Amino acid sequence: MNKDLKEIYEKRDEYINKEVSISGWIRNHRRQKEFGFIDFTDGTTFQHLQIVYDNKLDNFEEISKLHIGSAITSIGLLVLSPKNNQDLEMQASSIILEGDCDEDYPIQPKRHTREFLREVAYLRPRTNLFNAVFKVRSVASYAIHKYFQERGYVYFHAPLITASDCEGAGEMFQVTTLDLNKIAETKKVDYTKDFFGKQTSLTVSGQLEAETWALAYKKTYTFGPTFRAENSNTKTHANEFWMIEPEIAFCDLDGDMDIMEDMLKYIVKYVLDNCPYEIDFFDKFVEKGLKDKLNNLINSTFVRIDHEEVIKILKDSGVKWEFEPEYGEDIAKEHEKYITEYFNGPVFIKNWPKDIKAFYMKQNADGKTVAAVDLEVPGAGELMGGSQREEDYNKLANRMEELGMEKDSLNWYLDLRRYGGCKHAGFGMGFERLLIYLTGVENIRDVIPYPRTPNNCDY
Amino acid sequence: MNKDLKEIYEKRDEYINKEVSISGWIRNHRRQKEFGFIDFTDGTTFQHLQIVYDNKLDNFEEISKLHIGSAITSIGLLVLSPKNNQDLEMQASSIILEGDCDEDYPIQPKRHTREFLREVAYLRPRTNLFNAVFKVRSVASYAIHKYFQERGYVYFHAPLITASDCEGAGEMFQVTTLDLNKIAETKKVDYTKDFFGKQTSLTVSGQLEAETWALAYKKTYTFGPTFRAENSNTKTHANEFWMIEPEIAFCDLDGDMDIMEDMLKYIVKYVLDNCPYEIDFFDKFVEKGLKDKLNNLINSTFVRIDHEEVIKILKDSGVKWEFEPEYGEDIAKEHEKYITEYFNGPVFIKNWPKDIKAFYMKQNADGKTVAAVDLEVPGAGELMGGSQREEDYNKLANRMEELGMEKDSLNWYLDLRRYGGCKHAGFGMGFERLLIYLTGVENIRDVIPYPRTPNNCDY
Repeated sequence: MNKDLKEIYEKRDEYINKEVSISGWIRNHRRQKEFGFIDFTDGTTFQHLQIVYDNKLDNFEEISKLHIGSAITSIGLLVLSPKNNQDLEMQASSIILEGDCDEDYPIQPKRHTREFLREVAYLRPRTNLFNAVFKVRSVASYAIHKYFQERGYVYFHAPLITASDCEGAGEMFQVTTLDLNKIAETKKVDYTKDFFGKQTSLTVSGQLEAETWALAYKKTYTFGPTFRAENSNTKTHANEFWMIEPEIAFCDLDGDMDIMEDMLKYIVKYVLDNCPYEIDFFDKFVEKGLKDKLNNLINSTFVRIDHEEVIKILKDSGVKWEFEPEYGEDIAKEHEKYITEYFNGPVFIKNWPKDIKAFYMKQNADGKTVAAVDLEVPGAGELMGGSQREEDYNKLANRMEELGMEKDSLNWYLDLRRYGGCKHAGFGMGFERLLIYLTGVENIRDVIPYPRTPNNCDY
Repeated sequence: MNKDLKEIYEKRDEYINKEVSISGWIRNHRRQKEFGFIDFTDGTTFQHLQIVYDNKLDNFEEISKLHIGSAITSIGLLVLSPKNNQDLEMQASSIILEGDCDEDYPIQPKRHTREFLREVAYLRPRTNLFNAVFKVRSVASYAIHKYFQERGYVYFHAPLITASDCEGAGEMFQVTTLDLNKIAETKKVDYTKDFFGKQTSLTVSGQLEAETWALAYKKTYTFGPTFRAENSNTKTHANEFWMIEPEIAFCDLDGDMDIMEDMLKYIVKYVLDNCPYEIDFFDKFVEKGLKDKLNNLINSTFVRIDHEEVIKILKDSGVKWEFEPEYGEDIAKEHEKYITEYFNGPVFIKNWPKDIKAFYMKQNADGKTVAAVDLEVPGAGELMGGSQREEDYNKLANRMEELGMEKDSLNWYLDLRRYGGCKHAGFGMGFERLLIYLTGVENIRDVIPYPRTPNNCDY
């Protein structure tokens, strides 16, 4: 029976001196007069296998002409390599071509730049780097589901097409079935004729809807795509990305931070345990010290400090800042970096000035701050943001009025406060930001299979 | 410490005669002169808990006025009910109101119609029916991830905004940042000014992109939202829904069916094992016999039969059909039903006439059929569809030409066949269709948290 390399390596001892059949791709091919060596992989594990064949095979000539990139099925004995007694290799008794690879194949066994590989994004998971990155993406996704499901959270699928607009329409993609050419022709836009009978767009967050689930199931989380039509061409911005947004009833800001810390450590540990080869690769070739960085995170206690104290530390630091830190204002990247270095570990910055934070955050008794928190992580900057939510109907309604928000489409959100609404809190984590942290890969375009950025929507 | 009801019931014996604190909501409330009984739930389990309080409590008067729907924290001793020695109940020593519930609360302890509950969708997971439905949604999601991850599949996040159009633009939602009012004003549509520099829409399937992952990782699956702008108001159509699309290299149609069968049985068993109270509830109140139906599925062997033979059986049946079955044509709902009853179990119908199937399906040697398969399940109809994919570059390119398809945006898909492309297969399952089958709930609007259907986009 055909076997995955993953299984062969996991049950290595069972397979030594056994004959098996494997199917996968040729990554490299060295031919000699009487022998040949194929660097083989089937993608089920980061580990490759060397296949050795010799001229006793009927189709030796044919095999020795096989192209790099071709798909093959190879049957043979698994043995310990005579060269290195630790490595498995296959002595082939039969090699069959399953699918040829043309010679203009862009992925050759040499170093390709990440920029070049972005242009052949459909082939890049066949390289070691991207194979590892997207494997970690898959394993980290599962770690997230596992963490929440094993703790009784209910997975909530937030709607993606939405008519409510919680963070400003300017940055949202419009969704429509109106015929734009017809609009140009008739000079009329009639949203009552649009698919949903009104103007709709792609969601920027599932949080508000997730709160409805928290107030029914106590603990819920989203894990799904969100969209921002931000016209930003930076290494950390994509227009389509995945978010995790847990929401917990009967939970305050401290409880929220407990969960953020526990969840992050769990995911990091799970990836370290389940992607050892991938992490070693990143540590060697992408970010030296990555493994230590991740292990340090797991073993650190996260500091919890008020925004106001952070500003004081920054002001007292004697550092000449590019952006002067101010009470009542956001902090800049340089400040984030200083603070995580100052405490030599992850830092929760809490109780932020209310004017720079979202309308739904719980207003503190001081009248100036809200019960919000950002998690700053060494080498990653802001990795998550959360808050206790305002559960008081009047305070929430007043805040929405102060901000000039249109309340009609959010009546249900307000009414949640009238119908057994209680203390609750939640947070959001951008999945790609986590992946950048886990892999050391710096550009968000390199951790999303098919990234969407301004003027870029291929595949 | 505050405990989840789920934990209390799972470790029941540990908790008997222990004092605990619980937070949740009042589902019902009976007051007597010296006692009161609260039907309590915290949403972490389908099971409720009765809280008993008496007039020895300081705030007895206050407690006895608590409204249905209110959030409370109750501290007390967990004891076996004197009435029924099997049931746990709490003898409260303290009950605190966490969040009041106004008297116009729409969810009262009586039967509400599903139509009414759709109108207050943000409150419906607080009812038994929807609490169970969306819990099963969460647990089934996890079962899907667990199944694939434990078998070494890589989870692939397909892009949602796309510029390629694989199944006809008429049924796609357009995504744009162009200002429609400005189009009406200037009478010009200029897609080079659109966000991605071209016309884009929401994906109808992640399959084609998933094939690129299968040819790198051997085994992959998607689980994410897809969209159809179909103007259909039926019980089984929603415009935003979640799909599972596995894709496997070195796999033929038979292997594909093996996986479809194995996966479905796994999910059904996992839900039976992990949602026993929910399934019992559906069996009693939603679809009598549901539990037998699910257990039968697990224990059945799925029949595999050619489309041509199916037509023969239908023609030979002597039944007077509303739609006459024809070789070369699709089959109708009445035929699906007949066939699953004929075989008394799930049926794979395979090798379909190529003209009614998609361009990417593998052309069989007969020149007339493709290696496609639909799974028909008793009581669910078509639950999944799959196929072996055409791996031959020329046959695929010719088929696309025959169908008048625009090839430029799919060059990468064709080139997959030139670069180590090999035999591969996959299938798609609409997640909501599975949920309808698992819960017995008939309307797709009742298995999606916030459904999107024509003229309906609330929350």
